[in-house]
Amino acid sequence: MNDIEERIDDLQLKGLKLIQDKSLFCFGMDAVLLADYAKINDNAKVIDLGTGNGILPILIHGKYKAAKIVGVEIQEKSAALAVKNVQLNEIEDYVQIIKEDIKNIRNLFEKGSFDYVITNPPYKKANSGIINEKNEKAVARHEILCTLEDIISSSSYLLRDSGVFYMINRPERLADAIELMRKNKIEPKKIKFVFPYENKKPNLFLISGTKYGNQFLTVEEPLIIRKSNGDYTKMLYDIYSGKEE
Amino acid sequence: MNDIEERIDDLQLKGLKLIQDKSLFCFGMDAVLLADYAKINDNAKVIDLGTGNGILPILIHGKYKAAKIVGVEIQEKSAALAVKNVQLNEIEDYVQIIKEDIKNIRNLFEKGSFDYVITNPPYKKANSGIINEKNEKAVARHEILCTLEDIISSSSYLLRDSGVFYMINRPERLADAIELMRKNKIEPKKIKFVFPYENKKPNLFLISGTKYGNQFLTVEEPLIIRKSNGDYTKMLYDIYSGKEE
Repeated sequence: MNDIEERIDDLQLKGLKLIQDKSLFCFGMDAVLLADYAKINDNAKVIDLGTGNGILPILIHGKYKAAKIVGVEIQEKSAALAVKNVQLNEIEDYVQIIKEDIKNIRNLFEKGSFDYVITNPPYKKANSGIINEKNEKAVARHEILCTLEDIISSSSYLLRDSGVFYMINRPERLADAIELMRKNKIEPKKIKFVFPYENKKPNLFLISGTKYGNQFLTVEEPLIIRKSNGDYTKMLYDIYSGKEE
Repeated sequence: MNDIEERIDDLQLKGLKLIQDKSLFCFGMDAVLLADYAKINDNAKVIDLGTGNGILPILIHGKYKAAKIVGVEIQEKSAALAVKNVQLNEIEDYVQIIKEDIKNIRNLFEKGSFDYVITNPPYKKANSGIINEKNEKAVARHEILCTLEDIISSSSYLLRDSGVFYMINRPERLADAIELMRKNKIEPKKIKFVFPYENKKPNLFLISGTKYGNQFLTVEEPLIIRKSNGDYTKMLYDIYSGKEE
């Protein structure tokens, strides 16, 4: 790993820090929004599929009192960085990083071992858009090593009955997400669209689903990132400051 | 039919009028939003599944230059009223009302006979919510005589390849709509959520899908009905005045 490309960020959350490597996929607002959207009960077991540098397990640890958070990452360099981040924050008792292919998850865990699955998966299909020149970034953004179907079917396997699935993704994948969740017995319960500006198209959505849940979907209040003058909205500041609605 | 319950409304569109019967389901904003959302090419063949008093065929006729618009309605009284409305407007050459069960549609039309299907179906499942005491209204609101699956599978049968399906429904049925459209080879292409107020939950959505379309979904700019002071927005006035965005 080229140490020159690394930097350490302060996560502004209970002193937690994160080493990032600019040659890999760096975390963005998506991870912060998903960590805020996921509501995690005390003592829960949580798994993050495609954890990258470990940002989601670290944020979830900072915000909630989960008993155990597992981050699974297939890419060698990203998984190594995630391990380093867990060590840096001295949270090895709570957060475990596993370098593994999500498609092999059934060999690692018993069915129904987790209360929550969280995931910020590659948004784009393998055959769509410009593939990033650095392979590690391409894998984080495109379905090269695993598809949405791999992630959602693994999530269904990992969740206990009534366990909750949380995902952030792009609106272009909404139909895929809903179809695959239904197919895999994770009933879509809530969707929240993220609008970069008021009165513009949303560019992300947050979804929660319940394993074997009843059918009743709520589309929630919009999450708007910026006002028309370009300033961040109060909604976004509240999320970054950890204030509850 | 009790004539005392009838009234005639001016549709504010090319002199078109509509007789409504207060003992039946009266048209609301939904029909106006759907007629505006549907973009109908000149000379197209259009069918409206569950036409009620005929409001959608009449609005579509007023806004576009379709060659033929068929409205299908199972309920005797509503279908009779729709026929009366077509006669009142003297548009029998363009609009045909058929009293028929949507489940029998395959006996009436050849596969692929239409360019567009539009539908404002019963929103609620038969077993959900309070059933309206008047049976006609209950049928218009609840899936008593036909389900969303009946409507979407019939739509798929009626649409030619690349034909377009337009529907308005409630967000609680979004997962059902997407799952059933995919199952019936109508690919969801665009979704627009309707927000009664800014920053509140949407209470309706408009969706379009293409028969055998490619997979790429756009969630559009929100449609907001009222400002926080309760006044209607410019977006809504533009729809009612027929102004194009």
